[in-house]
Amino acid sequence: MTTWDFSKGHGTENDFVVLPDADGVLDLDPELVRALCDRRRGLGADGLLRVVRTSAAGERVPGDDPPEWFMDHRNADGTTAEMCGNGVRVYARYLVAAGLAGPGTLRLGTRAGVREVSLGAMGDVTVDMGAPRLIAEGPVPVQVGGVAASGTAVSMGNPHLVVVAEAPVEDWDLTRPPVVPREVFPEGVNLEVVQRAGERHLRLRVHERGVGETRSCGTGVCAAAVAAQLAAAGADGPARAGTPAWTVDVPGGRLRVELDGTTARMTGPAVLVASGTVDLDALRR
Amino acid sequence: MTTWDFSKGHGTENDFVVLPDADGVLDLDPELVRALCDRRRGLGADGLLRVVRTSAAGERVPGDDPPEWFMDHRNADGTTAEMCGNGVRVYARYLVAAGLAGPGTLRLGTRAGVREVSLGAMGDVTVDMGAPRLIAEGPVPVQVGGVAASGTAVSMGNPHLVVVAEAPVEDWDLTRPPVVPREVFPEGVNLEVVQRAGERHLRLRVHERGVGETRSCGTGVCAAAVAAQLAAAGADGPARAGTPAWTVDVPGGRLRVELDGTTARMTGPAVLVASGTVDLDALRR
Repeated sequence: MTTWDFSKGHGTENDFVVLPDADGVLDLDPELVRALCDRRRGLGADGLLRVVRTSAAGERVPGDDPPEWFMDHRNADGTTAEMCGNGVRVYARYLVAAGLAGPGTLRLGTRAGVREVSLGAMGDVTVDMGAPRLIAEGPVPVQVGGVAASGTAVSMGNPHLVVVAEAPVEDWDLTRPPVVPREVFPEGVNLEVVQRAGERHLRLRVHERGVGETRSCGTGVCAAAVAAQLAAAGADGPARAGTPAWTVDVPGGRLRVELDGTTARMTGPAVLVASGTVDLDALRR
Repeated sequence: MTTWDFSKGHGTENDFVVLPDADGVLDLDPELVRALCDRRRGLGADGLLRVVRTSAAGERVPGDDPPEWFMDHRNADGTTAEMCGNGVRVYARYLVAAGLAGPGTLRLGTRAGVREVSLGAMGDVTVDMGAPRLIAEGPVPVQVGGVAASGTAVSMGNPHLVVVAEAPVEDWDLTRPPVVPREVFPEGVNLEVVQRAGERHLRLRVHERGVGETRSCGTGVCAAAVAAQLAAAGADGPARAGTPAWTVDVPGGRLRVELDGTTARMTGPAVLVASGTVDLDALRR
C-alpha cells in the first residue's frame, strides 16, 4: 500500500488537496491529480497544491532570489495552473501550520512569479495579487444570460469584465458564458456581476472562463474592487496609499481588497479542515 | 481544537465519510453532518456512516439477538437514512480494516433491520439486500424525459420502476423526474433504465427519488436484476437456488446480483481511500 500525507482546505469555498513533497520525489502525473481531486473516487477538490522546495520543483522562478517554497498548483483536470488568490492563502496557511515557515511575511514561488503573503499564527491571510491593468478605456458591452449590459475590462494577469449594477446579484443568469467583443477579449473572459451593498462594500457573483459559475474567484474580486474604485473616483479620487479597503462578499465568503494605485492586496480566510494519509493504490481501484 | 478520526471511501462512486464512534459519544447533529459532507467546506460525501455499537446507538434494532455494530447512516442533508447497499459495503470494509471485526460473515444493525454481509480480508463485499417484491403485476406506464415507456415495479424496501429497453442507456433523458401513476407509486419512485449488454449482463442508469441521476444505486441494481430475470423467465424459469448471477454496470462501476427466489445478494467493491483527523471547529468557520 502506497500512502501519502495530505491536508484538505479551502479559501472562501475554493477547495484544495495539499500534498507535502518538500524534496519533489512524488511522481504527480495528471492521472494522479485527477484521481485525488475526483469528488467521489478520491479526496475531492477544485485543485491540488504540491508543497515543494523551489530547488526541487523543476520550475524556473523569475528573479535572482528564489523563495524557499514553490506552489505547484494543478487544476482538478490535471493541467498545471499559474496562480490562484484563494489557493495561495491555503498554501501559506499550510506552511505555517506544518511548521515549515514562521508567521509573518513569506515570499512564495508560483508559475506567475514570486508572490508575497502575510499571515499570523492563525486567522486571515493577505496576498499581494500584483498590479491591476485596464484592458479598455471605456465601458465594454456584454450579453449576460441574454441581457445587454456593459462593464469595466480589467486584467489581473487574466482577463475580467466587471458589470456593476443596481440589480441584486441573484437576478443575473450566469448559466451561460457571457458574450463579449472578441477584439477586447481574444482569449475569452471571466465575468463578475457586482452590486453595491454599502459603503465600499460589494456583493459579487462570478462566471469563470471555461468553468462556469463558481463560489469565489480571487482575481475577480480584485478586478471588481478596481472597477468600483474607478466608478467612485469622481468623489474619491483614484486609489493611492491609504485608500480604504473594499469588502467583497462572494457566494463562498468574504474577502477584502486594498488598492494603493500600484498593486492589489487581498485578505481572506484560509481554513485547513482535515489531514491524514491517502492510499494512492486505492485511488486507482 | 476539537478533532475526530475519519475515513473516506466509496462503493461504485457512492461516497461516504466514516466516523468511528464506538461508544456513541459524538454529538452528531444535522448541522455537523451537513458540514462534514459539504464538498467544498468539509470533507465531502454523499452520506455519512457513524460506526457505533448497537448498545450505544440509541436505536431499536428488531430481533432478540442485536448485532454488535450499528450502521448509523445519514444523508448529506443531515437527515437519517435507512439502508444503502453501497454504504453497507463501505461500512463492513471499514470494520475489518480497522480491526473491529474479522473477515467472514457479519451481522450489522441498520434502521431497516439486521443485514448480513460477507467479506474477505480485502476485495469485494457481499450484502444480503432482503427480499424483492413486485409492486404491480403487469407493466406500469412511465414518461421518461417526455418519452412514453413501461416498466416493472419492484420494491426493495423502497419503490423502483425498471424500464428494460433496446436503446443504449445513454439515449435517455434523466434530467427530470419520471412521471408515473400515483396509484402505483404514492410516494414517488426511483427509476432505472436498463439495456441488455450480454448474457445475464445489464447496463443501467438511475434517477433517484428526490436526488436526480446518480452514479450508482444498490437497491436499483437489485430491482433491475429482478425485472430482467422476470423478462427472461420464459426460457429461464423464475429465480431459484443456483440461478446464475446478473452483472450490472452502473456509471460508477460494476455490481453483481444473485437471486434465489427468496432474497437478493449484491456483491461489489468497497474502497477506503483515505483516513485522518478532521478539525470540527474549522468546519464551522
